[in-house]
Amino acid sequence: MSFTIPAAARIGDPLAAIDTPSLVLDLDAFERNLELMQAKARAAGLALRPHAKAHKTPQVALAQIARGAVGVCCQKVTEAVPFVEAGVADVHISNEVVGAAKLALLAQLARAARISVCVDDASQVAPLAAACAAQGSRVDVFVEINIGQDRCGVAGAAEVLSILHVISAHPGQLSFKGLQAYQGRVQHIRPLAERREAALAAGARTKAVVDALAAQGVACPVVTGGGSGSVEFDLAGGVYTELQPGSYAFMDADYGAIEAGELRFEHALFVLSGVMSRVDARQAIVDAGLKSMSAESGLPRVWGREGVNYEVISDEHGNLRGAPLPVLGDKVLLIPGHCDPTFNLHDELVCLRGGVVEAIWPIAARGLSR
Amino acid sequence: MSFTIPAAARIGDPLAAIDTPSLVLDLDAFERNLELMQAKARAAGLALRPHAKAHKTPQVALAQIARGAVGVCCQKVTEAVPFVEAGVADVHISNEVVGAAKLALLAQLARAARISVCVDDASQVAPLAAACAAQGSRVDVFVEINIGQDRCGVAGAAEVLSILHVISAHPGQLSFKGLQAYQGRVQHIRPLAERREAALAAGARTKAVVDALAAQGVACPVVTGGGSGSVEFDLAGGVYTELQPGSYAFMDADYGAIEAGELRFEHALFVLSGVMSRVDARQAIVDAGLKSMSAESGLPRVWGREGVNYEVISDEHGNLRGAPLPVLGDKVLLIPGHCDPTFNLHDELVCLRGGVVEAIWPIAARGLSR
Repeated sequence: MSFTIPAAARIGDPLAAIDTPSLVLDLDAFERNLELMQAKARAAGLALRPHAKAHKTPQVALAQIARGAVGVCCQKVTEAVPFVEAGVADVHISNEVVGAAKLALLAQLARAARISVCVDDASQVAPLAAACAAQGSRVDVFVEINIGQDRCGVAGAAEVLSILHVISAHPGQLSFKGLQAYQGRVQHIRPLAERREAALAAGARTKAVVDALAAQGVACPVVTGGGSGSVEFDLAGGVYTELQPGSYAFMDADYGAIEAGELRFEHALFVLSGVMSRVDARQAIVDAGLKSMSAESGLPRVWGREGVNYEVISDEHGNLRGAPLPVLGDKVLLIPGHCDPTFNLHDELVCLRGGVVEAIWPIAARGLSR
Repeated sequence: MSFTIPAAARIGDPLAAIDTPSLVLDLDAFERNLELMQAKARAAGLALRPHAKAHKTPQVALAQIARGAVGVCCQKVTEAVPFVEAGVADVHISNEVVGAAKLALLAQLARAARISVCVDDASQVAPLAAACAAQGSRVDVFVEINIGQDRCGVAGAAEVLSILHVISAHPGQLSFKGLQAYQGRVQHIRPLAERREAALAAGARTKAVVDALAAQGVACPVVTGGGSGSVEFDLAGGVYTELQPGSYAFMDADYGAIEAGELRFEHALFVLSGVMSRVDARQAIVDAGLKSMSAESGLPRVWGREGVNYEVISDEHGNLRGAPLPVLGDKVLLIPGHCDPTFNLHDELVCLRGGVVEAIWPIAARGLSR
């Protein structure tokens, strides 16, 4: 026996006709975000390589590239697959890759697109080169440096040089392309002055490594990094040649809560939820919880309903409190707390313009975490 | 251009050959959990209807039913579809359902399986009956009562009676089946004595409604509720006729942290992760973060490596600290913080027995949240 689950939305539907919960994109706000970011990168003379880990949606990447982005970043090799399949010609894997199956797929992708990847340990290099040799492909290699996040990345120029030595042993497969320097913790610092200071400190750590390498005769053609919270300072810092913001295109509640500087992006991404229980005057219960939105960065915000807050989240429910409350059957737009893991919960993105469904984009890399 | 992403695991693979991150199940521990719970329900003379929201995996439901479970609970109508398709003949939607598309699908499912659903507002009844009439099907109806969670559910017997009045107007489509009474907050109270007291209080609130209805001549053939944290007390309480635990089959880090009573379940569910960066002696970085495990109930625990903790989670990374640390390429089993949203991130469950892959089960209801 088999059943057809009806589509959540059809082209031409008004917002009110979309089934809930659904992930929806305001195309006008989204496109303004893309254009603003691209204009700033262009004015600063920097390449923009938006991070596709944020959205996992090839149509989003193509919209970014159509406006001038040089390609995208992906965080995992499998994540890159639908982007290459959709015609994205230049993908940077902004992460270390360990394991034969992952490296074989990476080397295979490099036959169809320009692929770069990070290393932060000399032992990662030979297996990468061997995978490329087996596929007859080549990849660009970045050495990742630690500029304060204390996650991946080597400590400084000496460690970069010793890895470069190993990379140079595989000239047929690997080309050193430069440094990746990313400080994730800076992105979410809420006071503007404190965030600027942290971003400049991370930039200064990066510049010190670039300068030390230059003093040894090693040039870094590309220095890639930065995120949506630091991008305003990264643009002006004179260190990065390429920027990797992802969330700027959507803006989640966490990024919405940081003190904005000159560069301000709009909320473009929402979870449409429906009121499915309302048993008293204190609260209304909606049908979108942890399986529709990530909450580890904070609860969602209610959009366009002053005085109503999303106060309790459970797996499939949310308690809205305040006044005036929506009633049973009403639909409510929520700004998710954290956009990246929220995209990863949905299979499609319902795109609206002027409140009408214009397109439905598959979130084709949803769940591709290997 | 199209690429084949290689399978994460194949039948017969040893644990070490499974690609990471992957969701893995220890079948021996899982089956012991199922048998223990079923034996307790049988001894108490109660029906066991495990919650499929926890795992979204039809093969898990079939294993529970093979041991005596009367059927499963689902939280959403779309979630029920793969279970009915897999042959589960009795599904309780333990939630209110609002909206024509959802009700039409519910009524369609009721042509193929015994379906029940909750209501907590009289206005939900007529649309439900109309959907059944349109499909020529009938459903069993539970009135949900609030026993302290303050989410869904009516306040007491008077409200139940007024909803029953509306249900009774649709004898061709709807049959009143009883009450649903669930107190989610009780489940995670860590001190045993406090949890017992809260579970007994919730049971007493339920009993008061059952007794008040009986005094009005209204019998409740089924009283359904309970969860993995309260089940030991619910079994003995004399109020419930049917229990709905879900997590007991798997045990996550959050349930692992509550003070267990007599009834103890084993950790059976893990995320297998791989070390992909290790740049100094303080920590090892694994490839499983928020896109592989839910963290809103707390960080994952490292399994079988005394002295090593998972201390920082990001979207695709985790920082393991302590000693002795695993090295680059090592694989590490993690107990996820919260099993329900973790299952919802994965497409398949790699099932092991004695460290060897015995089966790979599709998590067929993953993402089905409407």
